[in-house]
Amino acid sequence: MLIPALVDISDHNQDWKVFVGSGALIGVLCALVSAATRGDRPRFTQRLGFLIVTSVWIVGAIIGAVPLYVSSVSVTYAGAFFESMSGLTTTGSTVLSGLDAMPRGVLMWRSLLQWLGGIGIIGMALLVLPALRTGGMALFHMESSDKSDKVLPRVGQLSGGLVAAYVVLTLLCSIAYTGLGMSFFDAINHAMTTLSTGGYSTHDASMGYFEDDRILIVATIFMVLGALPFVLYIRAFLPRRFQLWSDPQIGVFFAICVTLTLAIAITRRVYNASSIEEAFVSSAFNLVSIITTTGYASDDYTLWSNAALGIFIFATFLGGCAGSTSGGIKANRLYILYKLVGANFRRLVRPHAVIQFKYGQNPIPPEGVQTVTIFFFLFFGTLLLGTVALSLFGLDFETAFSGTLTALANVGPGFGQTIGPAGNFSSLPDGALWILSATMLLGRLELVTVLILFYPPTWTD
Amino acid sequence: MLIPALVDISDHNQDWKVFVGSGALIGVLCALVSAATRGDRPRFTQRLGFLIVTSVWIVGAIIGAVPLYVSSVSVTYAGAFFESMSGLTTTGSTVLSGLDAMPRGVLMWRSLLQWLGGIGIIGMALLVLPALRTGGMALFHMESSDKSDKVLPRVGQLSGGLVAAYVVLTLLCSIAYTGLGMSFFDAINHAMTTLSTGGYSTHDASMGYFEDDRILIVATIFMVLGALPFVLYIRAFLPRRFQLWSDPQIGVFFAICVTLTLAIAITRRVYNASSIEEAFVSSAFNLVSIITTTGYASDDYTLWSNAALGIFIFATFLGGCAGSTSGGIKANRLYILYKLVGANFRRLVRPHAVIQFKYGQNPIPPEGVQTVTIFFFLFFGTLLLGTVALSLFGLDFETAFSGTLTALANVGPGFGQTIGPAGNFSSLPDGALWILSATMLLGRLELVTVLILFYPPTWTD
Ligand SMILES: [K+]
Ligand SMILES: [K+]
Repeated sequence: MLIPALVDISDHNQDWKVFVGSGALIGVLCALVSAATRGDRPRFTQRLGFLIVTSVWIVGAIIGAVPLYVSSVSVTYAGAFFESMSGLTTTGSTVLSGLDAMPRGVLMWRSLLQWLGGIGIIGMALLVLPALRTGGMALFHMESSDKSDKVLPRVGQLSGGLVAAYVVLTLLCSIAYTGLGMSFFDAINHAMTTLSTGGYSTHDASMGYFEDDRILIVATIFMVLGALPFVLYIRAFLPRRFQLWSDPQIGVFFAICVTLTLAIAITRRVYNASSIEEAFVSSAFNLVSIITTTGYASDDYTLWSNAALGIFIFATFLGGCAGSTSGGIKANRLYILYKLVGANFRRLVRPHAVIQFKYGQNPIPPEGVQTVTIFFFLFFGTLLLGTVALSLFGLDFETAFSGTLTALANVGPGFGQTIGPAGNFSSLPDGALWILSATMLLGRLELVTVLILFYPPTWTD
Repeated sequence: MLIPALVDISDHNQDWKVFVGSGALIGVLCALVSAATRGDRPRFTQRLGFLIVTSVWIVGAIIGAVPLYVSSVSVTYAGAFFESMSGLTTTGSTVLSGLDAMPRGVLMWRSLLQWLGGIGIIGMALLVLPALRTGGMALFHMESSDKSDKVLPRVGQLSGGLVAAYVVLTLLCSIAYTGLGMSFFDAINHAMTTLSTGGYSTHDASMGYFEDDRILIVATIFMVLGALPFVLYIRAFLPRRFQLWSDPQIGVFFAICVTLTLAIAITRRVYNASSIEEAFVSSAFNLVSIITTTGYASDDYTLWSNAALGIFIFATFLGGCAGSTSGGIKANRLYILYKLVGANFRRLVRPHAVIQFKYGQNPIPPEGVQTVTIFFFLFFGTLLLGTVALSLFGLDFETAFSGTLTALANVGPGFGQTIGPAGNFSSLPDGALWILSATMLLGRLELVTVLILFYPPTWTD
């Protein structure tokens, strides 16, 4: 809260009071929560864990919304909550326009929400969700040790390493942006929303504002870095047995990026007669932006061609790697589903063969497979029901479907004129914004973590 | 072939020669195939089974396309094949317009393709697919006996009963239609395409042509009968232990129909100010038509409201019951997925509880669950890739997505102006028609049966 307050004070903007006031409020709340949870009852660990994880994000979004609501920016509370949730979940959908002329404290606040949300989800996926056995980087966890107790003493060390890697990468990115001519303020903000694969910008035209292919290339590189498992960056500092850690999802992720970039680049040559260089840079940037679930745009790519649009919609589902800041289905699940289909096919044609079912060098236990299939079912179920729910508010099919999808995968822009990369979410009714806020949270916490709270046996003995 | 030939002769239409010629061609082909397969090698049963099942449908569609292509109707070969595949798979999407003025032999041929396709899939789902262990009514099969050999002696009896039930229901339906004022020809054709949940009509306006709510109500009833497991109708004639057979999917199916009909009826009252009776009849008819994957329309329901449209798109996924003529995900799978999510949630909050995982009164083996999850993954994977493939032919998102979905679920009409209930598939490029033909086949044969042919280890020792 102090950073945007200082920015606003330096700009002589009265919004600084908002940030200082909100900061004080949070301090009081934190004190209350820590007091209330002191008498922790270990018997309820599992369900209390789900409740705490979900509550932390909701409370965070409520707090994050306060400065936006109270500031000089005109927005309803539903809009402010949507914007805050979109920030914390690193979705990056926005109800705001006129960003270029907005108080810099508000812009900084949006970027900070994404940056904090990014490191928050990395920590949660690595340290909390595996303990709750609902996915995240559970596979890494299983690889390292089957007894969760053993992991606990390393938590402090691991967290420190992850935060350090995140900070260093953000600094490198902002230095690169500054070197390519961005203002210091723009560079810091975009670096924070690049590494968090969040996608908020300080300009309505997003990365298109800078009209510089070199910036797009740098952004592409750092978006990819943000979508790789962060454990990769601290591998060298981990105990010896982790240093050989290799992860098949990384290959899947790169294969997807390269294949789809080439496919889009071909459609650019065919339908838009772009030069080879222009076709390749714009394809790679906008597509990697979608696959890593960042959501920057350099152009309204939805108008390129129906062929490119189809590929972009497909890409919106995929996501980066588990253990990164990105959302979507994620490459580790795609890999497991691919193996699952292969194993099932093999079982059909070789009824007596022994099926080797592995992730990298490690066998996948049946619960690991079930967790992935459950996620997949809940993902598409939520996508369908969210589409129906939004259509009940009068939204057309493309807006309802792509809005739910982009929220669920934490990508940011949808498709169609209303919420596409050239539009924003400001024209949506408040009810739709609440539904989308909930969908972003569902997507960010990998569905089960939230939905299990609505499963009655969770609360009965 | 003889029936449409006789119809054309009675109409003095020269197309009768086409049907007689095609009939002779089929006779020769059948003789060749039976000669070629005489030296059956039992070692290859499993993979040969997949190949034969898929080949039968492709050859059937090729043969079915010949009369349409050679007849006086103007259509490309891709269009004729699409129309024939759409018939045999009981999808009901059409490239033809001006049906009201079309030679009656062609109309009869289209209806016959659907009627034969309908009984074909019931037989295949009950008798062939369980032996190949790829779904279908595998659950009924597992309930009855775990040894497929035991089932074989009853095959003749069971098939006879199913065909008898199908014929009797079709006759009852055509009598009801005739009684409500349809011409004899219209009644027979629509009865065939109602019970097969196929949806081909003899009029461009589909069931809307008759402008009679009583016909819509009768059609709704018989579409539901076509979407129930056909074993239900011959239960009384089966050995004693099957007579108590009850199937939880039937309850799921009715619950879905009633809930969504009420939801649509409410949107009709709210957005279209319809009378209660009109709202209810039109909602029930058009929605049941989609859920049972029949695809009749009495009206362009896509124009009712965005809210109703959202529900219709959702309904397009669902499908009727396994062991019926309907397509889609089907109620048995929805039930199992629902149980699967529940079991997973229970495991998370009660790590030490014993999970009871049953379909009705019978435990579901792990392979049964895996088969369902694989189907689900392949269904959505095919939907996404099909959408991308169609968009590469320049189709807009709504047409590409809903076209793939309606083909995959064997429903018939898509959404949007081009392929919606008021449109048809004639404006699509030939490439898109081939893709959609393949998608219809994939959907009809429950994906694995076809896709396993493209899995290399199927063909290696
Ligand atoms: K994002
Ligand atoms: K149909």
